[in-house]
Amino acid sequence: MSERFDVIVLGAGSGGLSVAQHAARLGARVALFDPDALGGTCVNRGCVPKKAMWYAAQIADLHRLAADIGFETAPMRLDWTRFRQRRDSYIAGIRQRYATRLDTAGIEVIGEAACLVSADTVATATGMRASARHLVIASGARPRRLDIPGFELGMLSDDIFKLEAAPRHLAIVGGGYVAVEFACLMHALGCEVDLLVRGHLLAGFDSEVVDELAAQMQARGIRLLGETQVRAARGKPGTITLETGADTQLDGYDAVLWALGRVPNSDRIGLEEIGVARDENGHVLVDAWQNTSVPGVYAVGDVTDRRALTPVAVAAGRALAERLVSGHADAKFDDSVIPSVVFAEPPLGMAGLTEQQAHARYGAAVSVHSGRYTPLLSMVAGRSERSLVKIVCVGDERKVVGIHVLGPGSDELLQGFAVALQKGLYWRDLKAAIAIHPTASEELLLLH
Amino acid sequence: MSERFDVIVLGAGSGGLSVAQHAARLGARVALFDPDALGGTCVNRGCVPKKAMWYAAQIADLHRLAADIGFETAPMRLDWTRFRQRRDSYIAGIRQRYATRLDTAGIEVIGEAACLVSADTVATATGMRASARHLVIASGARPRRLDIPGFELGMLSDDIFKLEAAPRHLAIVGGGYVAVEFACLMHALGCEVDLLVRGHLLAGFDSEVVDELAAQMQARGIRLLGETQVRAARGKPGTITLETGADTQLDGYDAVLWALGRVPNSDRIGLEEIGVARDENGHVLVDAWQNTSVPGVYAVGDVTDRRALTPVAVAAGRALAERLVSGHADAKFDDSVIPSVVFAEPPLGMAGLTEQQAHARYGAAVSVHSGRYTPLLSMVAGRSERSLVKIVCVGDERKVVGIHVLGPGSDELLQGFAVALQKGLYWRDLKAAIAIHPTASEELLLLH
Repeated sequence: MSERFDVIVLGAGSGGLSVAQHAARLGARVALFDPDALGGTCVNRGCVPKKAMWYAAQIADLHRLAADIGFETAPMRLDWTRFRQRRDSYIAGIRQRYATRLDTAGIEVIGEAACLVSADTVATATGMRASARHLVIASGARPRRLDIPGFELGMLSDDIFKLEAAPRHLAIVGGGYVAVEFACLMHALGCEVDLLVRGHLLAGFDSEVVDELAAQMQARGIRLLGETQVRAARGKPGTITLETGADTQLDGYDAVLWALGRVPNSDRIGLEEIGVARDENGHVLVDAWQNTSVPGVYAVGDVTDRRALTPVAVAAGRALAERLVSGHADAKFDDSVIPSVVFAEPPLGMAGLTEQQAHARYGAAVSVHSGRYTPLLSMVAGRSERSLVKIVCVGDERKVVGIHVLGPGSDELLQGFAVALQKGLYWRDLKAAIAIHPTASEELLLLH
Repeated sequence: MSERFDVIVLGAGSGGLSVAQHAARLGARVALFDPDALGGTCVNRGCVPKKAMWYAAQIADLHRLAADIGFETAPMRLDWTRFRQRRDSYIAGIRQRYATRLDTAGIEVIGEAACLVSADTVATATGMRASARHLVIASGARPRRLDIPGFELGMLSDDIFKLEAAPRHLAIVGGGYVAVEFACLMHALGCEVDLLVRGHLLAGFDSEVVDELAAQMQARGIRLLGETQVRAARGKPGTITLETGADTQLDGYDAVLWALGRVPNSDRIGLEEIGVARDENGHVLVDAWQNTSVPGVYAVGDVTDRRALTPVAVAAGRALAERLVSGHADAKFDDSVIPSVVFAEPPLGMAGLTEQQAHARYGAAVSVHSGRYTPLLSMVAGRSERSLVKIVCVGDERKVVGIHVLGPGSDELLQGFAVALQKGLYWRDLKAAIAIHPTASEELLLLH
C-alpha cells in the first residue's frame, strides 16, 4: 500500500489530533499514525488521569477538614481498584469519542508507528508507505530515565496510574510539576511521601510563591529533601533503599516514583536521517509557524522546543492546519501569555513573568503588589494556611506583566486574568473592577 | 455632647466602613454611627456566613460524590451547634479586626442609631448630636416581611444562621438569589426542601442558565413549586401549613424561610423630614457620584437604588471618600460591568448582559455562543449534570457583552473574565488565548 495525502501526522496526542482534525475540517485528506492510544500523554497518562486523582485528593483533604468545621465524620478510604476502574472507563470514553470524531471527519487512522523516509514520505514496520505535501511530527515525549543501578525498581509517572493501592511510604525523585503534584496528591490519599529534589523546586515559577508552597507541603507532612541526588536504588519492590551519596542513603520505601522531566520522542522516527534539526535535548527546533529546518516537515507539541503543555500543542496544531490547508500564510498562535497551573495542594498558578524574570528584563521599573490571606474556609476550620496573590507590574503606568496565585481556587481563577493580561492589563484596571465577594479571585483586585 | 466632624457615616456595613476608612485614611475626621454589629449584613447576616454554609454544603455533596468515585465512606452529619460556633467565632474575629482598624484610623465609632435632623446634623436617642460637612447614609437593608397571617411562624434569612439543627422539611418562599442559595445549601445539608416561587426564578439572570439550574436543583431532589403565592401560614413551629390559595395548601413543614427580597433602611432616620428623595420602594435615589437630592447628603450601599452587592457598596464608598475628602470632583466608580455569582449548587455566575437583555438592546446584531459539558469529576463519578457556558456577542467584530456560567468552578473563574470584559473583550481574544487544561475556566475559550 502506498497512498498520497495532503497532511500526514505522526502522533495522536493533543497536538497531533489538533492538526489532523482542523486540517480535515478545512478539507484536507489526512492520515494519522500512532501505535498507541488516541489522546496521547494528556488523556492517557497525563493531565486527565492526574486531574482525576487530584480531585480524589481534594475530596480526601476536604473530608479531613470537614471534622474541623463541625462535621461528625468517620475515616474514609479510597478503593484504588474501583477508582481506577471509574477513571479508566471515563478515559476510554474520551478515546472512543476521538475515534468516532476522526472517523466522521474521514481521517485515516493507522495504529502503527511511522518513520520519515524523506521529507514527504513515511513508512511503517509492516511496509506501509504514505506520502503527503505536509508531514507533521507530533510524537510527544516520554518520562526521562536515569542510567543508574536499580532504576527499574521505581515507577515512572505512566506507571503510577496503574497502582492498585496506595504505597505506604513513597519516595518521589524530582522537582518539577509532576513531582510536586504527585507528592501532594499521594500524600492527601494517605501515603507518607518524601520528595527528593536535586536542584530547584518548580524552576520557572515565581520563587516566593514556590517557597510558600514548599512550606505548606512540609506543614502538611510531606518530607522535602533538597540538594539530594539519587545515585542508585536497591532492594526489591516493597523495600527500596535509595543511595544519595557515598555514605548516605534513605530507606524504607515501598515505592519510588522517578519524576525527572521528559524527553522528546524524536529518535527512531527518521528525523536525523532527513536532517531535521534538534536541540541538545532532542527537541525538534521549530519557528513561530511550527516549521522545522526541513521544508514540508513541521512539528507541534511536546516533541518541539516550545512549552510542553496540552493547550500550547492544541493552539499550535490549529494554527498550523490553518496555514497549511487554508493558506493563511501568517497563521500562528500568540504565545505571549501561556498561563499554567500546578495542581498541587493547594494549587499554584502563573501567567506572564515571575518577579525574578521581570527584574531581569525591566530592572528598577518593576513594582510588585502581593498579599497573603487565610481563605474563608480555612478560617472557619481554624487553620492557618495562607493563600498568596502577587501582581508584577512595570513602569509608571504599572502595566501588569505577571500574575501569581497560590491557594484554593487558583486552578480556576487564573484563566480569565490571563485573557486580560494578553490583551494588556494595567493596575488601574484591577482597581476599577468590581469584586465578586467572597471569593479567592477577588483578592487580585484587593491588593495594595 | 455636640461635635463637628468632616464626615458622618450612618451604618457600619460594607458601604459605610468603606467610606469611613477611606475618608479617615485621606485625613478626614470621621464619625461612624451604627447600633448593630460592625460589618453589617455582609459580615454578620449575609455573604460571609452564607459562604461558610455553602462550603459546608459543598463538603457534604462531595462526600456523597466520593462514594461514586471509589471512596469507602460512612454517612457524615453536620453538628450544627459546633459549626455555628466555628463560623460565629470566625465572624467575631472579623468584627474585632474592624474595631481595631477603626480605632487605629482614629474614627469615632458610636454604637447608636442616628437620625438626620438637618442636612449637616444627626442626633441619637440618648441626645448626642454631631454635625459634619458631609453626611453619608449607609444604613443598608433588611429582609422584607409580608403582612399575612402567621408570618411570624417563619424565619427570615437573618434567623437561619441561628439554627441549631437542620429542619427536616423546609419551605423556602421566594425566587431571588437568597431563596435559591438556601434551597441548595439546606438540601445539601440534609433538609427536604420545597422552594415556593411566585414569579420568575432569579429574575435578571440569563433565563437559559436559570432554567438549567432549576432542572439540576429538581434532579437533586429540591421540589420547585412555581406560580405559588403564599397567603397565610398556620400551625406552630415544627408543623407549619402554608395556604397558597382558597382551597390549596402545603403542609408538613417544620420550618419556613421567607426570602422575599429586601427593603432599604431608609425610614425612621429623618430622610423624609429633610427631603431626601427615595423611589417607590424606599431606596434613596443617588446619581453616579452617590449624591442624594439634598446637597451635603450622600448615600452608598443597599439603602440606595444601585445594585445591592457588597463590592458595589465598597467601590461606591471608596470613590465617594476620594471625592469628598481629596476633592477629586469626578471620582466615581465604573459600574459598566458588575459580575455576580449565585452560590447555588452548582454555582451560577454572570457578568454583563443576559442574552435577553442583549437582544432587547442590539436586536439582530447579537450572536450567542454556548456549550454544555459534563465536568471531569462528574464524568468519573458517572454523573450526568452538565455545566453551561455562554458568551453573548454583538456585531460583526463579536464584541463580548455578556458572560454566563453554570457549574462547578463558576464561583472562582468569572472574576478575571469580568475584568477582561470591562476592558473590552472580543470573541477573537478568547480564541487567541491559551487554555489552562483541564479546568472549567478553559471552557470559555473552547466554545464554537
